Amino acid sequence: MNPDIRRERENASFNVDILTNIIDGGPEKTRRRREIETLVISDPDFQHDDINFMSRSERYDAAVKKSAQMIMKLREYGISDPEEIYCYKSCVQRGRSGPLELHLGMFLPTLLNQATPEQQDTFFMPAWNLEIIGTYAQTEIGHGTHIRGLETTSTYDPSTQEFVLNSPTITSIKWWPGGLGKTSNHAIVLAQLHTQGRCHGLHAFIVPIRCMKTHMPLPGVVVGDIGPKFGFDEVDNGYLKLENVRIPRENMLMKYAKVEPDGTYLKPPSDKLTYGTMVFIRSMIVGDSARALSQSCTIAIRYSAVRHQSELRPGDPEPQIMDYQTQQYKLFPLLATAYAFHFVGQYMGKTYHRIAGDISQGDFSELPELHALSAGLKAFTTWTASAGIEVCRMSCGGHGFSHCSALPAIYVNFTPTCTYEGENTVMMLQTARYLVKSYTQASAGQRLSGMVSYLNQSSTRLQAQSVSARPTVLDVRDLASLVEAYKLRAARLVGAAARNLQMEMQHSKRKEDAWNNTSIDLVRASDAHCHYVVVRLFADKLGEVGDTGVHSVLNNLALLYALHGITQHSGDFLQAGLLSVPQLSQISQRVKELLSQLRPNAVALVDAFDYHDEMLNSSLGRYDGNVYEHMFEWAKKSPLNHTEVHESYHKYLKPLQSKL
Amino acid sequence: MNPDIRRERENASFNVDILTNIIDGGPEKTRRRREIETLVISDPDFQHDDINFMSRSERYDAAVKKSAQMIMKLREYGISDPEEIYCYKSCVQRGRSGPLELHLGMFLPTLLNQATPEQQDTFFMPAWNLEIIGTYAQTEIGHGTHIRGLETTSTYDPSTQEFVLNSPTITSIKWWPGGLGKTSNHAIVLAQLHTQGRCHGLHAFIVPIRCMKTHMPLPGVVVGDIGPKFGFDEVDNGYLKLENVRIPRENMLMKYAKVEPDGTYLKPPSDKLTYGTMVFIRSMIVGDSARALSQSCTIAIRYSAVRHQSELRPGDPEPQIMDYQTQQYKLFPLLATAYAFHFVGQYMGKTYHRIAGDISQGDFSELPELHALSAGLKAFTTWTASAGIEVCRMSCGGHGFSHCSALPAIYVNFTPTCTYEGENTVMMLQTARYLVKSYTQASAGQRLSGMVSYLNQSSTRLQAQSVSARPTVLDVRDLASLVEAYKLRAARLVGAAARNLQMEMQHSKRKEDAWNNTSIDLVRASDAHCHYVVVRLFADKLGEVGDTGVHSVLNNLALLYALHGITQHSGDFLQAGLLSVPQLSQISQRVKELLSQLRPNAVALVDAFDYHDEMLNSSLGRYDGNVYEHMFEWAKKSPLNHTEVHESYHKYLKPLQSKL
Repeated sequence: MNPDIRRERENASFNVDILTNIIDGGPEKTRRRREIETLVISDPDFQHDDINFMSRSERYDAAVKKSAQMIMKLREYGISDPEEIYCYKSCVQRGRSGPLELHLGMFLPTLLNQATPEQQDTFFMPAWNLEIIGTYAQTEIGHGTHIRGLETTSTYDPSTQEFVLNSPTITSIKWWPGGLGKTSNHAIVLAQLHTQGRCHGLHAFIVPIRCMKTHMPLPGVVVGDIGPKFGFDEVDNGYLKLENVRIPRENMLMKYAKVEPDGTYLKPPSDKLTYGTMVFIRSMIVGDSARALSQSCTIAIRYSAVRHQSELRPGDPEPQIMDYQTQQYKLFPLLATAYAFHFVGQYMGKTYHRIAGDISQGDFSELPELHALSAGLKAFTTWTASAGIEVCRMSCGGHGFSHCSALPAIYVNFTPTCTYEGENTVMMLQTARYLVKSYTQASAGQRLSGMVSYLNQSSTRLQAQSVSARPTVLDVRDLASLVEAYKLRAARLVGAAARNLQMEMQHSKRKEDAWNNTSIDLVRASDAHCHYVVVRLFADKLGEVGDTGVHSVLNNLALLYALHGITQHSGDFLQAGLLSVPQLSQISQRVKELLSQLRPNAVALVDAFDYHDEMLNSSLGRYDGNVYEHMFEWAKKSPLNHTEVHESYHKYLKPLQSKL
Repeated sequence: MNPDIRRERENASFNVDILTNIIDGGPEKTRRRREIETLVISDPDFQHDDINFMSRSERYDAAVKKSAQMIMKLREYGISDPEEIYCYKSCVQRGRSGPLELHLGMFLPTLLNQATPEQQDTFFMPAWNLEIIGTYAQTEIGHGTHIRGLETTSTYDPSTQEFVLNSPTITSIKWWPGGLGKTSNHAIVLAQLHTQGRCHGLHAFIVPIRCMKTHMPLPGVVVGDIGPKFGFDEVDNGYLKLENVRIPRENMLMKYAKVEPDGTYLKPPSDKLTYGTMVFIRSMIVGDSARALSQSCTIAIRYSAVRHQSELRPGDPEPQIMDYQTQQYKLFPLLATAYAFHFVGQYMGKTYHRIAGDISQGDFSELPELHALSAGLKAFTTWTASAGIEVCRMSCGGHGFSHCSALPAIYVNFTPTCTYEGENTVMMLQTARYLVKSYTQASAGQRLSGMVSYLNQSSTRLQAQSVSARPTVLDVRDLASLVEAYKLRAARLVGAAARNLQMEMQHSKRKEDAWNNTSIDLVRASDAHCHYVVVRLFADKLGEVGDTGVHSVLNNLALLYALHGITQHSGDFLQAGLLSVPQLSQISQRVKELLSQLRPNAVALVDAFDYHDEMLNSSLGRYDGNVYEHMFEWAKKSPLNHTEVHESYHKYLKPLQSKL
């Protein structure tokens, strides 16, 4: 092991295993996760060349192979707990998406939730056995977030008892669904249902798209891969153009809405449950943010411990770059953020399961708040993590740009979370809608509960008091006081946005225009609300930590997270009178102290995330710190080195010499 | 043409051509640039498949071909003016780097500047005729920014009158030089010179690395490609390990320092001129920032004009997404930034040429300020542009992730500028060193000139006056007043950093520790200084614009740039007492007004950058707005679509069905 990184570990002031258990959710979970990891890592069927050296077609090929192996092995081993499946899959795919992702994650669950018992008999077992491979085709080339705008049509023909599916315009071509391009032979297609001369809006249809024997596209089906993207090389995101494709009436998913043989349309009862799936996925993405950022921090911080550069003092040896204050200032706030997001992810998971339980009992009361929270936190955490990964990459100097660092792959595979499952700005505005509604309710004297309960006091108090009259409450050494400050900042910004909205209403012809003209303020309010929730949940988590050593270091991280956030938004806190100018200087000083205090524990704090070298796949982030030896070995395998002389020399350079 | 984008153009309030001429530096320059573009675009020798569909080896191959063609054609056409060569090269390579970049940009110029007349006789013509293809090998795998730390050795052996070159450690392997891996047969190697038992520090040596007949690596030379990176697929960045490689004494570049046949070392006279090259390259990078950001804005804004999504008002058709305030808030400040950086780039170019003139007359007086300015502005503009490209990409929804948008390529090819030619944080600290020195001089009563002259008044005034005693000077509608505010903010932050540094000096054992412990403040001060310079140069530029229509729209952009920056750093302005809390709300309101005012001119403002479709190579950014048709055509060409059924189906999926 590299002596620098060994020394870092020797100097840590806390027990790494205890912290790992906290992140995993208990020692038993850590044990089982490691067991599954070992199962995958030691499995010869999952060995292959470094994908960095493969073409896209080779990557897709390798991913199909892995997915197929994975499905067999999961059944062989009898792994059926969703959390364990998730863990096994993450290990096999190294956290990336795969060609069968939508078959497993959307096609099968949609059958279970929206198919009638008869339809399940027809489709489920073939799909379970991968004779039917399906995807979920919603997005169109011209339509994303606003699903009511989708243009694909499904028109019922009672004469044959069939639906006729069409892509009537170029903008209606289905675009983006994973596994659609080459892998799937069926798709659940979202289309506008027309019957008896009327349109009844979006419904889901099971559409065969490729022959189940030859895998060739069926007549009327134009299907293919949408081309290379920023990341996701393993996935055949696809396009689908339907030209008078006929499917039996029985292929409309009819658990809720129905079309009878004569074409009569029967409306569905209300469907709050589909709402639940979105909330679940967005809650999971919060955890993804934590993972992507903590992996990036692991790589950047380990490398900063072994990399020596420049000189702090003339004549002294080059110091570890982690000793530079600017390097600490780049990385430690992100490390704190990664911890914060892990704990928020845990909270969202727990809350989802609790509320899912309530919902199954018919109690939907907490769903709106969870919906609003998951939307905002999805946006807040993915934006922060996405930018943070890039800070980590750049903190590694040139080598961060090499694929051997793994940082480019982490970025390109993570950054789509800012867009999919609800575009982030749209998400922030959804949260804002809930906040404004809550504010209005509180102003009208209604008593709010949950994360927005701060609006109870503030809607009246903050409106009445002028800024200067409010006392400065902040104690920069006390986490509870910082939580309070974030809360009051959120209250102030929610109140300001709500009042701006009201003012706009008086000027605008329509309330939609007023909403649009206030949307900058509304996004800002949501952001402040989410920031408060994160700081608060981090502080709450500390209350659960018994071990003194771990508590102490987590407390420093929480303080750093909160104080650094204040320096980044100091205008808000000054404007709200929550902070005085001298306190701001005090906070800058305190941030520097916290950086120094965290410095000896930085490597141990990333070790606690417990990413196996095989999972990180990063030369710079290796546990043993032997970075340069590994980079050199990796580079030798570059495809350009397969021959000593590249053919282009003979084709272009040699002939050029004689011409010049 | 798409009717939406046609209407946008019809509604513009200014003459686009006039603005294009201002960006190019005059109508004649616009004409000549377009002429060169047409020359390249219509040249059948530069046609090839879309590189997005190629493997890395194919991309390298295509790039070598293009570079070779380009060199022939430049000589054929007699294009020799450096600006015109740059333009032609940009067109051929679409702004990307190429395998011969370092041969042309570093190897040949270094020969011209550092070789003796005899050496030029030996090496220059073969290099000019590409018999010798060279690169510049400085960076090592373990050493980047701090070049004194380089470990490669060159030891003089008087018995044979040769230098013996070695890579004594793994960390000393040369790593990253462009064209080193496969293209070059020579390298200028930076190595520690040892002679007569003493080390004389870094010197440059011409080292043959591949046989000029067979292109095979020479004995003792281990050379290859460093593997795939984030972007730069076309370039064979390489590694080089030297094992007792002997070169004649005459291969040390001896224009300045010399080693005589007996091994006697002769010191060089002072070499301020090499300093000039760095300044020049960093100044050019400011222009690169402007180009990368303005290309991204062109794509995102054109697409925002043709993309319809969601509904502002129930029942109305889906609006152009550019009508959403949040979309304007993402893109228009970046558009303003792109303009600002174009003008800063022009200023840097002009200033460099003026000062280069002075230097050739022996007057070095202005070089330190230009050096400090180019370092800071390189960092300031590349960080801003790099983050801004990603905002543009994400503002295009899912399609921004597709390589057909060109945005991923712009990002990966631009973001390395944050690291190369001086890592950005190091650059900011170099600028800070100059600012602190200037502050100290001003405090001692010395009269400063140039961009730092604001420290004259402030060093005394800002120290003496308390924050609250200073009058609030800001008039949010007056650009000159905003420039003044940025100036005072910079003065305050430079002063604060300098005073923190002095305080640290009293506590720290060494001044280097004090410097490190103040580095967060120092970077912040540099950032504020650069921000002031950009705002000021934008305002200065307005003074040169005669056309009323163009002046009016540029004035709005300048106001938006300045006011948006204040909202992003409102804490600084409040803290310095340059702004009151009510003014901050006024600014937010004013920013919204400016967004609305700029909305009708947004497309015309990106049209004025005048990027030809062939140059942008973006489906989303097409001039005609026919986005979706083009995306569909592009996708059909994806390599995964070469066969209807991918081989992985037969290899893995079909067999799996029988096993489950």
